[in-house]
Amino acid sequence: MRNPIITLLSDFGTMDYYVASMKGIILRINPRCTLVDLTHQVKPHDIKEGAFILANAYSSFPKGTIHLSVVDPGVGGPRKPILLVTQNYFFVGPDNGLFTLALLGEKVKQVIALTNSKFFLPRISTTFHGRDIFAPVAGHLSLGIKPNAFGNEIDSWSEFFFQKPEVKGGRLEGEIFHIDTFGNLITNISEQTFFHFVKDRPFVIRAGKRVTQGLKKGYWEGRRGEFMALFGSGGFLEISVREGNAQKTLGIKRGDPITVTLTRA
Amino acid sequence: MRNPIITLLSDFGTMDYYVASMKGIILRINPRCTLVDLTHQVKPHDIKEGAFILANAYSSFPKGTIHLSVVDPGVGGPRKPILLVTQNYFFVGPDNGLFTLALLGEKVKQVIALTNSKFFLPRISTTFHGRDIFAPVAGHLSLGIKPNAFGNEIDSWSEFFFQKPEVKGGRLEGEIFHIDTFGNLITNISEQTFFHFVKDRPFVIRAGKRVTQGLKKGYWEGRRGEFMALFGSGGFLEISVREGNAQKTLGIKRGDPITVTLTRA
Amino acid sequence: MRNPIITLLSDFGTMDYYVASMKGIILRINPRCTLVDLTHQVKPHDIKEGAFILANAYSSFPKGTIHLSVVDPGVGGPRKPILLVTQNYFFVGPDNGLFTLALLGEKVKQVIALTNSKFFLPRISTTFHGRDIFAPVAGHLSLGIKPNAFGNEIDSWSEFFFQKPEVKGGRLEGEIFHIDTFGNLITNISEQTFFHFVKDRPFVIRAGKRVTQGLKKGYWEGRRGEFMALFGSGGFLEISVREGNAQKTLGIKRGDPITVTLTRA
Repeated sequence: MRNPIITLLSDFGTMDYYVASMKGIILRINPRCTLVDLTHQVKPHDIKEGAFILANAYSSFPKGTIHLSVVDPGVGGPRKPILLVTQNYFFVGPDNGLFTLALLGEKVKQVIALTNSKFFLPRISTTFHGRDIFAPVAGHLSLGIKPNAFGNEIDSWSEFFFQKPEVKGGRLEGEIFHIDTFGNLITNISEQTFFHFVKDRPFVIRAGKRVTQGLKKGYWEGRRGEFMALFGSGGFLEISVREGNAQKTLGIKRGDPITVTLTRA
Repeated sequence: MRNPIITLLSDFGTMDYYVASMKGIILRINPRCTLVDLTHQVKPHDIKEGAFILANAYSSFPKGTIHLSVVDPGVGGPRKPILLVTQNYFFVGPDNGLFTLALLGEKVKQVIALTNSKFFLPRISTTFHGRDIFAPVAGHLSLGIKPNAFGNEIDSWSEFFFQKPEVKGGRLEGEIFHIDTFGNLITNISEQTFFHFVKDRPFVIRAGKRVTQGLKKGYWEGRRGEFMALFGSGGFLEISVREGNAQKTLGIKRGDPITVTLTRA
Repeated sequence: MRNPIITLLSDFGTMDYYVASMKGIILRINPRCTLVDLTHQVKPHDIKEGAFILANAYSSFPKGTIHLSVVDPGVGGPRKPILLVTQNYFFVGPDNGLFTLALLGEKVKQVIALTNSKFFLPRISTTFHGRDIFAPVAGHLSLGIKPNAFGNEIDSWSEFFFQKPEVKGGRLEGEIFHIDTFGNLITNISEQTFFHFVKDRPFVIRAGKRVTQGLKKGYWEGRRGEFMALFGSGGFLEISVREGNAQKTLGIKRGDPITVTLTRA
């Protein structure tokens, strides 16, 4: 039988003991787990950034993978610890919107409020449910314990408002949704949305003070330092500078607008 | 049989080949090991910070885990390479105080000076005992080789002076011992020490130029941006700013004082 | 049978979903793999830095390890995806010079241009061959599929020009090839080259505005803050400041010269 896989995502950084504590607890419960970090460098308390990374990574993993995700500014407060069971995966973490984007692509079969303290650490801190609740639940889940054992089924889960691109005054208006390590600006405009709007007509794309025409097929098509638009590996419109840093070049931040305007042929 | 677990802690960072080399050597000796990073981002040469992370993480792991810890400014010099065997764990690394805080919670059964070069790499550099001595010793230990095979038993090990909080002039005086990723200020005042001093009397807590009354149960009790005190996940008094960064807000550094003063009821 | 080992090196950083996606894809193909990060913090697009890290880490791993390395500024363009088979290891990645330094120490047995799309993801993006081509090839390779199945054998691979130290005007002239986490300056002057030039004659070493005589055996021989030269764990001449940061002290950058000059006895 193959070993169960648990991924970990958090805003805990990698300089503290937080991530290691979670892993230790999981291995104490199930030493056969394969643990894989998604990232622990989500900006502190930034639920939307965590949601973005999770949404882009989770589906690369085998069916049955347990995704343990903890960006949890409300830890210890009224937000619920939950387990979401979809057709392909398990998601464990705080019910604060963190799973909003991943669930767009998954069919949710069960939502469980984690209340059965038999599967928690004996002593629950108020500041570190990653270690005290979520890690031990993920560990027990990886042993094959049924979702219903962890608490009662509930009807709904939290989502944040995800701004979709809109057509206004003949332009397609989107926003910069994520800025990656290379400074690439990833927008909320999907390939489908883009071509539904543009069809086969000519267009320009505006971000900050820069304008570009047309799309590249890949980074390599640009000249070094060229400002360009293309569809990135997650399927969204992306602004990039060949072997450069678009974020620094344009002085842009997350949430800033990007527009696609049709031009006369 | 379950796979042996080896944790790794160092100040090597994650941009160089140092950590990977240690892992490669371990896997060459015992490919069945499960390797878990505690952190490699201890500030360069900062033995106390390494000791703090190790002390907070080690006990989350299963009995029998081998903790390989290398913050080693004196590498190649007179400090001894050692193996400490406690009731629950193995600790491998330089004898320079790095294990001071972890051992406060462990009963030491054996201290071995690592001298048997049969378990080292054939060629020992003077600058990288992590790869040449500590990793291969940890690897062999994970195969079940007995501690005595690695060298002679010795009587003592090094500790640094750990400043405990003191009561002076009616105040409890502690210090900031660690600053975490979120900017939370973690002090050397344990829950036990705190309540032994305060009992059920009213008090104020001072750090830098800020004063706060009372304790929160968790971060969520504060208003956004509120300065507050609470007991953190390691059991020590902690200063925090809700969804903010206490270190930046207060301009405080490690070693700075924190005081608890009783107030008239 | 022991689990296959795949190492991963890239310039993807650890804050995005890129590395996790590659790991997920590998585990989907072969859940028995042991995955080890070399580093993902190669400076963006810096093939030489990636080559240096890989060259210093790869040989610590067991025979048969698959080294998956992706620093790929030309992704999607004309550079070939390749698999290199040496006597001891497999190397998978873009054919852009990334394997130049590792192959100095290995005997290459086979070079395969990766063209068999049966082993790729069904849909290949133009921007992320790490996930779409290299990770699935490494995963299938770890299942024991023969190198020839992945594409046609070719005769050559790309190398960058590696500046070797030279003797000019009676001096040995080298350069700073890598700066590590501690600020140590690692040069391109090997122990063999150094002693072939110096023999047992007295010498001075110059880097930036500083000069030092003689070599230390290890960091511990220096006084705190002392500027010194020694041979590092990779076998190359290294400039270091004891418990300090040579890079900051000297204001030096990669590619800057270092010279060894003989002095009269």
